[in-house]
Order: sequence, then C-alpha cells, then structure tokens
Amino acid sequence: MIRTLLPLSALLTLATPALATDPAPSPGLAPSEIVAAAPKAEWVAIPATDLLVMDLAPGPNAKPRRVVIQLMPPPFAQGWIGNIRKLAAAHWWDGLSINRVQDNYVVQWGDADGEDKAKARKLPTGLAVVPEVAYQTNVSGGDPLKYLKIATDPYAQFSIFWQGWPVGVDYSTVHSLDFSAWPVHCYGMVGVGRNLPPDAGNGTELYVVIGQAPRHLDRNIALVGRVIEGIEHLSSLPRGTGALGFYQTAAERTQINSVRLGSAVPALPAYEYLSTESATCAKYAYARANRRDPFFITPAGGADICNIPVPVRRAK
Amino acid sequence: MIRTLLPLSALLTLATPALATDPAPSPGLAPSEIVAAAPKAEWVAIPATDLLVMDLAPGPNAKPRRVVIQLMPPPFAQGWIGNIRKLAAAHWWDGLSINRVQDNYVVQWGDADGEDKAKARKLPTGLAVVPEVAYQTNVSGGDPLKYLKIATDPYAQFSIFWQGWPVGVDYSTVHSLDFSAWPVHCYGMVGVGRNLPPDAGNGTELYVVIGQAPRHLDRNIALVGRVIEGIEHLSSLPRGTGALGFYQTAAERTQINSVRLGSAVPALPAYEYLSTESATCAKYAYARANRRDPFFITPAGGADICNIPVPVRRAK
Repeated sequence: MIRTLLPLSALLTLATPALATDPAPSPGLAPSEIVAAAPKAEWVAIPATDLLVMDLAPGPNAKPRRVVIQLMPPPFAQGWIGNIRKLAAAHWWDGLSINRVQDNYVVQWGDADGEDKAKARKLPTGLAVVPEVAYQTNVSGGDPLKYLKIATDPYAQFSIFWQGWPVGVDYSTVHSLDFSAWPVHCYGMVGVGRNLPPDAGNGTELYVVIGQAPRHLDRNIALVGRVIEGIEHLSSLPRGTGALGFYQTAAERTQINSVRLGSAVPALPAYEYLSTESATCAKYAYARANRRDPFFITPAGGADICNIPVPVRRAK
Repeated sequence: MIRTLLPLSALLTLATPALATDPAPSPGLAPSEIVAAAPKAEWVAIPATDLLVMDLAPGPNAKPRRVVIQLMPPPFAQGWIGNIRKLAAAHWWDGLSINRVQDNYVVQWGDADGEDKAKARKLPTGLAVVPEVAYQTNVSGGDPLKYLKIATDPYAQFSIFWQGWPVGVDYSTVHSLDFSAWPVHCYGMVGVGRNLPPDAGNGTELYVVIGQAPRHLDRNIALVGRVIEGIEHLSSLPRGTGALGFYQTAAERTQINSVRLGSAVPALPAYEYLSTESATCAKYAYARANRRDPFFITPAGGADICNIPVPVRRAK
C-alpha cells in the first residue's frame, strides 16, 4: 500500500548497485587502509610536466605555502591547459594574488586589476580562444560502463572514474563506442574563471572548489585540474567580505610569489595516483560507499562521486 | 544498440524530475533573486530558544567571532539537544576550545582534556544517555512525498526538505503514513562527536561540517543543528597537523569565550528561514537544479540535497 507511493525509479535505483563493480568487501578495513595496502603496480606516476606549482608568500607563521595542482590529461580541457602552460612559462602569475575567498564555494586567483585595461598585466602572445563547447569532450574510451561507475548521480546520466578523474557521462551523445563526458566540480578541482557567455575564460583567472561540490557549474565552466597537495593554504584563508567573497582591500589579498610547471621546479617530489581501473580502487570505492570499519554501524549503500576522492600521494 | 548498455534505472532516473514539484520556471532569475522576492509570510521565525550562540576569543584582527547555531526541532535528536541545553545553561563550554580542524571535513570543539579523567571538566548532572537507535526517527508527517523531494540521492531511498531541514527517508521502515527519517550531513550541519559504538556521544563534543557532505556519517552520528551565521570563523581556522586534524599543541587551539542559548544572549538579532513547504522554496530549489540566470549555459537538471541550502537570514 505504502510502497505504491514510491516512484518506480527509486525502487530500481535501490536495486542497482551504486558502483558497477562490487568486489569482495574488506570487512573491518577503513578505505585508507585498503589504499595503503595497494601494490606499487597499481599506482600511476604523475609527470612533472602535468603539475602546476604555486608558491604563496609566507603566511602569519612565516612558513612556506606551496600548492601543487595536477592538470588534466587529454582529451579534457587541453585548450585552456595549453594557455596555462604558456602563462606559467611566462611567469605571468608571479606577483599577482589570491583575490577571492567565498565560504563553501571557491578560492580564486589572478590579476586583481584584470578588469581595468589601463592597469591589467600584459598577456603573453599566442593564447588560444577556447569555445564553450569544449566544456564537454568526446572520449575514445570504449564502453563507459567498464569504468568504476556511480549510477545515482543527480547531475549526470551517470558518472565514472576515468584514468584517475571523476567525470560525468551523457550517453545520449555517444557515437560508436566513444562517449561524451565532462569533469565534475568536486572539492579541490581547479577551474577557469570567465565572464558571461560566450566567454569561456583564457586560463589567467583560476579557482579551486573549497566547499560542497558546486556541480551546477559542470559543463558551464572549464575544469583543468585538481589540487593534490597544499589545499589548506587556500581553504583556510580569511573569507572575503565583498560581493562573491572578493576582498575589499588590496591588503587582504595573499601574494603569489610564483607559479611554475612542475618540470621547472627544482627538487619537486614525485607524485602518483591510485589507478581508478585497479582492483584496489574498486575495493576502496566500495568501502567508501559501505563503511564497515569499527566506527560505523550503518553502511550507506552508496556514495556521491565527490565523496570518493581519488587517492594521490608522494611517490614511494 | 548503445542504449541497451544503459541500465534501465538510469533511464528512469532521467525521466523522473529530481524535484517532485516543478513549478513554473523563473527564467533568468538567480536562486538568490527568487528568495529575495519571497513574501514575508513564507518566512518562519526561529525561536531564540532554538539557537546556540558560541563566542570565540577574538582572532588575529581583534574582531569578535560569533557563531550562531540553530538546533533541530522535534522529533529529531531531542535527547542530545536536551543535553546541549543543559550544558549551555551550566556554561560548560566557557573557556574550552576548538581542538580539531580537518580540511574538507569538520571543525570540532569541546574539552581538549576530555580523554584524561584526572583533568576532564566536570559534567553537569542529569545528562541523558541517548542510544544510537535515535540517529533515525519516526516522523508523523503524513506522506513524505508531499514534501520537496530529491529522488536521486545516493545515500537514501530519497531525501526531502522537512520543516526547513534536509532529511533522508527510508520508506521500508514506515508505519501507516508516518515515515522514518534522519538529518543529513550537509555543509554547516552540527553533530555530536562520540567514541566507538555503541557510544552515541553526550553532546559535549560538537563538530560542524566544513567540506563535501560526509553523508557516510548519516545514521552513524547524531546531527543536532546547523550553523546559520558565522561559519567562516570556523571554516577558515588553520588546519590541525595531527591525526584527524587535531591540533598538536594547546597554543594552536582557539578559545571559546562562551556558549549560550539564544534566549540568554542580550540583543541577539532575530533569525528566520524560508519555509521549505512554501511556493517560493519550490521555485528556488527548482532554480538551483536548473540554473538559467545569465552566467549559465547548461542547466544541470538535478541537484544534490546538500547543494540546495535552506535560506536563512536575519529577520526583516
């Protein structure tokens, strides 16, 4: 009687595992313990050329503040990422600042005078103008269902982990066994600030998500990477008190000393991520969705794609 | 051919609106603009007796730091909330501290010496021992589908907004037209720290979510309220460098000057929330899920329950 009130879709969603792969559970192990036991072969090295290293001016305690960002691999967002590589090579961000910190939303950096043509910092030549259609990309990946999958995603037909990245998938746009996908706005993801459409940003203004995943921005702004170390240097900054969390005075801004590609930074540690196509990652994701370590009494039975952060670490 | 790869549930999920009520869209209006136009009658006053006001010691810029928390109404979490009222009346938290700040997770406060029986602050008498079964509650609310509903929720059969609060619903546990529900761990929600099960906490150790909704904690820890003002005084604190984000030295902790029920705080502003049963709230939620204000080009078509924050403001 009561059950007839429930939409059929909800019942079927329950019947469908949230993750395509339901590996043998690892009773009693926390997700972090499962990851710690992964064999070395399941970790994928991140090339230093795919890292962007931002050094901020030291904070109140005088300690260095370094933020390390991993840029997305092809075919995602390569137009903007090409610009970012050029901007870093030209030392374009050096001496600019963190200009916006909006609670539960984003931290943004770039040229605080960018809107003022007389004062704006001169851009290097050769930056691409990337069209907004590039927010979504065709991926030659075969069947998307072979990847670790989240079936219950309010923002996409479903979402998957593809070569280490959370992406939304739209089956209706596929051709052959390619599929159309886009990166999703999880905590720590880095995107490209822009003006009103059809502007899609040139990569000079960047932001990082520091709150609940603002997934309504998916397919509306370009995502280019994620912070893999040092996000606390951004997320703990004082919130701006102006509109949208912009600082109202120059004194409140945090200075950026330098932004460089990882390959141009001496003595940078090597980083690696847990292959999202690995057996351990499937177990880890399953455990994130079905916590059975001693603290927990009721496993959720599912998880949001942004609540399964891809493990990244300094290489061992 | 391709479409046969898609599970039926995903197709049906697409066919089902994420929100039960699809009001006439408000083309071009941002969710905040829709809320700003709500008639006064749609706003619900929050009694001062349901507020908990925490004043921190002033920060580096010497400005006052006040955090205002709204406690949940019955039937949710009343055992713990009764304890919290007693603790506030006894000034129990005065002079204690913020002891833990874990990035993308929680800020936690209480007695830093609580684990050390010799040093722990003495508790007031008469605190209830609340059992963990109280994480989930029977609600005499009639049909839960009459509320603003999120059909696509990875963590619950579905979730609704009930009298201003986001709650998960489990239809399988209903009797008559009551339904079984639990508050969900969205950004800003306040919960009760505890030890290993079956301990369910006594309300002395509280935490607030400052990152991606840790929904795996739903039904595993008691939620008792949400921060409605001043969360930036917690979310921007330096992250702790010890295990779980605990501060490693006493000097890093932020002192709590006082915690009082709102009814004991002179000159406290009045607060109100937008009725989640109102026509405007339905429009607001729909707009959050289908952004059509000028910045957006691709409406999501759905939203996570934690990405539709219930509007709360100082009373006008």
